[in-house]
Amino acid sequence: MKTVVVRNIDRTEADVVKRLGALGVSTVHEACVRIGLMKPYLRPVWAGGEAAGTAVTVLAQPGDNWMIHVAVEQCRPGDILVVGCTTDNTDGMFGDLLATSLRARGVVGLVIDAGCRDVKSLRAMGFPVWSKAISAKGTVKATLGAVNVPVVCAGVNVHPGDAVIADDDGVVVIGRKEASEVAAKGEKRQAEEEGKRQQLASGVLGLDMYKMREALAKAGLVYVDGPEPE
Amino acid sequence: MKTVVVRNIDRTEADVVKRLGALGVSTVHEACVRIGLMKPYLRPVWAGGEAAGTAVTVLAQPGDNWMIHVAVEQCRPGDILVVGCTTDNTDGMFGDLLATSLRARGVVGLVIDAGCRDVKSLRAMGFPVWSKAISAKGTVKATLGAVNVPVVCAGVNVHPGDAVIADDDGVVVIGRKEASEVAAKGEKRQAEEEGKRQQLASGVLGLDMYKMREALAKAGLVYVDGPEPE
Amino acid sequence: MKTVVVRNIDRTEADVVKRLGALGVSTVHEACVRIGLMKPYLRPVWAGGEAAGTAVTVLAQPGDNWMIHVAVEQCRPGDILVVGCTTDNTDGMFGDLLATSLRARGVVGLVIDAGCRDVKSLRAMGFPVWSKAISAKGTVKATLGAVNVPVVCAGVNVHPGDAVIADDDGVVVIGRKEASEVAAKGEKRQAEEEGKRQQLASGVLGLDMYKMREALAKAGLVYVDGPEPE
Amino acid sequence: MKTVVVRNIDRTEADVVKRLGALGVSTVHEACVRIGLMKPYLRPVWAGGEAAGTAVTVLAQPGDNWMIHVAVEQCRPGDILVVGCTTDNTDGMFGDLLATSLRARGVVGLVIDAGCRDVKSLRAMGFPVWSKAISAKGTVKATLGAVNVPVVCAGVNVHPGDAVIADDDGVVVIGRKEASEVAAKGEKRQAEEEGKRQQLASGVLGLDMYKMREALAKAGLVYVDGPEPE
Amino acid sequence: MKTVVVRNIDRTEADVVKRLGALGVSTVHEACVRIGLMKPYLRPVWAGGEAAGTAVTVLAQPGDNWMIHVAVEQCRPGDILVVGCTTDNTDGMFGDLLATSLRARGVVGLVIDAGCRDVKSLRAMGFPVWSKAISAKGTVKATLGAVNVPVVCAGVNVHPGDAVIADDDGVVVIGRKEASEVAAKGEKRQAEEEGKRQQLASGVLGLDMYKMREALAKAGLVYVDGPEPE
Amino acid sequence: MKTVVVRNIDRTEADVVKRLGALGVSTVHEACVRIGLMKPYLRPVWAGGEAAGTAVTVLAQPGDNWMIHVAVEQCRPGDILVVGCTTDNTDGMFGDLLATSLRARGVVGLVIDAGCRDVKSLRAMGFPVWSKAISAKGTVKATLGAVNVPVVCAGVNVHPGDAVIADDDGVVVIGRKEASEVAAKGEKRQAEEEGKRQQLASGVLGLDMYKMREALAKAGLVYVDGPEPE
Repeated sequence: MKTVVVRNIDRTEADVVKRLGALGVSTVHEACVRIGLMKPYLRPVWAGGEAAGTAVTVLAQPGDNWMIHVAVEQCRPGDILVVGCTTDNTDGMFGDLLATSLRARGVVGLVIDAGCRDVKSLRAMGFPVWSKAISAKGTVKATLGAVNVPVVCAGVNVHPGDAVIADDDGVVVIGRKEASEVAAKGEKRQAEEEGKRQQLASGVLGLDMYKMREALAKAGLVYVDGPEPE
Repeated sequence: MKTVVVRNIDRTEADVVKRLGALGVSTVHEACVRIGLMKPYLRPVWAGGEAAGTAVTVLAQPGDNWMIHVAVEQCRPGDILVVGCTTDNTDGMFGDLLATSLRARGVVGLVIDAGCRDVKSLRAMGFPVWSKAISAKGTVKATLGAVNVPVVCAGVNVHPGDAVIADDDGVVVIGRKEASEVAAKGEKRQAEEEGKRQQLASGVLGLDMYKMREALAKAGLVYVDGPEPE
Repeated sequence: MKTVVVRNIDRTEADVVKRLGALGVSTVHEACVRIGLMKPYLRPVWAGGEAAGTAVTVLAQPGDNWMIHVAVEQCRPGDILVVGCTTDNTDGMFGDLLATSLRARGVVGLVIDAGCRDVKSLRAMGFPVWSKAISAKGTVKATLGAVNVPVVCAGVNVHPGDAVIADDDGVVVIGRKEASEVAAKGEKRQAEEEGKRQQLASGVLGLDMYKMREALAKAGLVYVDGPEPE
Repeated sequence: MKTVVVRNIDRTEADVVKRLGALGVSTVHEACVRIGLMKPYLRPVWAGGEAAGTAVTVLAQPGDNWMIHVAVEQCRPGDILVVGCTTDNTDGMFGDLLATSLRARGVVGLVIDAGCRDVKSLRAMGFPVWSKAISAKGTVKATLGAVNVPVVCAGVNVHPGDAVIADDDGVVVIGRKEASEVAAKGEKRQAEEEGKRQQLASGVLGLDMYKMREALAKAGLVYVDGPEPE
Repeated sequence: MKTVVVRNIDRTEADVVKRLGALGVSTVHEACVRIGLMKPYLRPVWAGGEAAGTAVTVLAQPGDNWMIHVAVEQCRPGDILVVGCTTDNTDGMFGDLLATSLRARGVVGLVIDAGCRDVKSLRAMGFPVWSKAISAKGTVKATLGAVNVPVVCAGVNVHPGDAVIADDDGVVVIGRKEASEVAAKGEKRQAEEEGKRQQLASGVLGLDMYKMREALAKAGLVYVDGPEPE
Repeated sequence: MKTVVVRNIDRTEADVVKRLGALGVSTVHEACVRIGLMKPYLRPVWAGGEAAGTAVTVLAQPGDNWMIHVAVEQCRPGDILVVGCTTDNTDGMFGDLLATSLRARGVVGLVIDAGCRDVKSLRAMGFPVWSKAISAKGTVKATLGAVNVPVVCAGVNVHPGDAVIADDDGVVVIGRKEASEVAAKGEKRQAEEEGKRQQLASGVLGLDMYKMREALAKAGLVYVDGPEPE
């Protein structure tokens, strides 16, 4: 690992990020052809939070949040901080003081493959965090990592400037160059979904609406009458 | 596995299911002599949801929700969908479109040994789900499973038509034929519990109310006076 | 294990416990020089609960809550019950009847390295519980353990009478003799934190406020200009 | 749960069990159309052990091996003991004394959804065990369970008398009535496999041998030439 | 935590440790009335290793093995190093160089609630290690911990000088003052076990040898004749 | 995800890979400045296997090994197959037939973030595999993934052609362009280590050899004399 801070990064365009955020994680993930989704062990520390931003990335050491302090300076309005760790760790690397500092710079949220603390204050501030654990375990500031290099966070390789969308369903990452196309696909999907919802609500079966019966029969599905005699 | 859909199943009587639901999971579980409880990794995707219904069962493949679509057609008012999976999987096999479709058929909830998505919409709809994970991970429709065969879900073998009761304490399954007897036992237990609660609230010790002192002494329990000198 | 109940224990002073509770888990944990924190798998069974009390300890057997019944008698107002288990177990050893009994004795909460049930009632009662799992699984009363001996709970060795502070950030334990000193340190830390918060909110960087730049440079941190050419 | 011991059970025929054992777990599992496989957390306590037998089933309580003692009497030569537990538990319910007793009755192995101890002696005896954990944690004999009722073990519902095949690849269960058909299918599969192995060893690609190219193209697979320019 | 090294500790007598080691973990654990056993996630990094020694304890920080280097100096022949960590961590804090150093001081093994590396060399050296993980992840030397203070390791509170016995069945800890009594009890138990083994091998049932039938009947166990009609 | 197969990739030079393999995982990992190590849940399916090769990467779907069949054709002598999965999955995607096919093409091993089966045969063949699980669970061939695109495997982002070194200590990945420099650093480290080993074996303390005493004192480490009076 190069113990480096990369100072100027290219970011996904703000209006594209906004459109992706409006779609929500599940729709965006489908529009990405189902990649880029972080593992589901990342959970919001308070329910209902939502965030869409451009990634400033941090590679941290276990039990050490020094690089998060370093990363704050690199953040701009509309960014979301994404923290990976060189090894599995649940320590509380992030709390309300860091959230205060990030908010002062216009950062919209935090995604951290480690622990978070001060949950009550974060909820009160309305600062959304997705983490692997909630833990009061304090950290040191002793070993270098890196800022704005590609990091693996919860199973996804994140590049600085990628679009990151997070809500109750999880966290999804979209590459900077594909973001616009994904937004367009997602909007198309969403538009179609409303019509489907109405049909389903009226009692039309998905089997018919999606025309699945033929494929099921071809795959060998058999219907039998029960109940079996006892 | 027979890739089969069983079309007519015997269901636990609706009024028995209703009585079991009124008792709640913990009381029903005690009345079952402590069996039929699903593993505690199944959790409600939103707090406070409650459901009591008759099981329509699904055996699904990992990352594939085709059989859930098939199962919808087999559901009737008062059913609860129970989905087992042939292997451990956390993908989001279920979301708000399927919930819309199930609600149109009168289904009261979902229990799934896999993942669920669209949590925000499900909460807004008031459609209760107990799942192993929350995940936006999309699924394919490629491989057959089965509907209305016995399935193991979160450690419990569930037969089609069994009574399934779910709340914040978890999910419990009662066999169709034992359901009426369990309901009666649970109601008796519940009636007795209120008296116990009042005694305990007034300061009577469980040691005395349950007459435990003799058994404890016989088992060898010793009381000593502390604190130990330092 | 001595199957013993220790009847009189020395407790941390009530006003010290109160001061520690006012500080909250994360601040107290820092003031302890970062020890005494239970593992983060212990979570509140309902969000927002807070408790600060003196430990009455229980060593329970898996699937058996007999010793919790025994421990109730040893509790006084201001106590918090701390339950360790001789082996990993998630059974629902504790529910609303025991909570009713504890409340009647003035107990302020429960910390249990096992499962808890009747979550809905506990929330309604406002009785806070930190547990490893929520599970309706019933337990027997068949095998002795101990009350008011040192127990390991979620990775921390707890002595009877220790101060125990719990909130959304987790559970921390402070030795009876160090509690007063820890409270003083925590209050000092808290007082300083408000000033820091204001500075950070006004846009001052932690890098400058904590004077980290020199140490970072000395450790070898390098800043480079991106973005890298493609 | 009925606290019952069922004394005479129908068992899968011995020669069918033998044929299934000769095939091994992976081949049998494929011949079952991929069901009946226990979860992979069950592992042999010593590498290389293999067993094929008819299930005598036990439902045990956490931390309690009383029912295993009861089950020994119900075992006959060629049986394999299958132990499920009413809740997750890793205690060492089984050791070399019980293995000595089982061996005296001709039992060929143990499958236990809990812990096992005396690993060194078991290896020396050549008595194979598949368990969830290795643990010296001793157990009590205090609470009833059941023998020879259907039990869920590591995610599979096992009926008394079912064929159970176990080796380094895991544990698979075959229903008594399907066992003969599964053996026949497995033998056919195995016979074909040898030819495939020789072709693959000679360098024929599976893509060609299994004629996958057309289906892949139809599904949309695209081949591109790398490496990408830097 | 006091960042301290305690230089002279009282150790369990060497001949008592030797007797405990001869008994093995499972027998010692039973003789302790089933306490002091570490959690079963601690496993030997190579099968067949055995160790019995007096504890030199280390409290380490995540990702940091500085205190292990410090502890080496405090070790004497017959010691076993026991490493707890302030938070869950699987990094490879220990490898063959440290093992070489410990062996030069007569240390008989390592028990670590974290990771270990250089497994191949350790096996070749015959240096036994029980760890939570095998991991090549390197560590830093940046933050102080403590040596020869009580530490919680894999769920057990270990005092410096305690007897520690480890083999394929796990790791058990016996307090310095109880060690002699535990050894005597264990030897008595072991002597009795041989007779039991012979009886069981000859076909005597545990049900009869342990005289369990009356207690089972009293608890309500019922025998029924199967198989059930289909 | 582009469902694509990249046909010609740049590979790390064979002699550099060979040098890295001679160093072993732990030494290479240190020479990489401690990055590129896969998570320790990846374990060899048989002990003692070692492999060093150039990565051919596969992105597979849960329960589906179609892409592994596709990848075989892209392999050359000296390659190692690296399989990531779009979601957590333990199914046995790989067995002895695929190993036979890979061996026919000169592939030296497999690293798979999923399950593996036919362990007995693989050991007999001497074909080394590092996997997340051992499972006989069969897979389908129904959904496309990708070959020779970057994949995240056990927490590490792997590019096609990267050097991959695996042994009992785990699996480490080195970027193609850094491989030569890492090999040189590792060889230097290894050369120095032998001298250290001899010093430590002769009784020299690491505290002195690494000159740690001053830094420890500066950090505040205190030595006190025990044992504490009782």
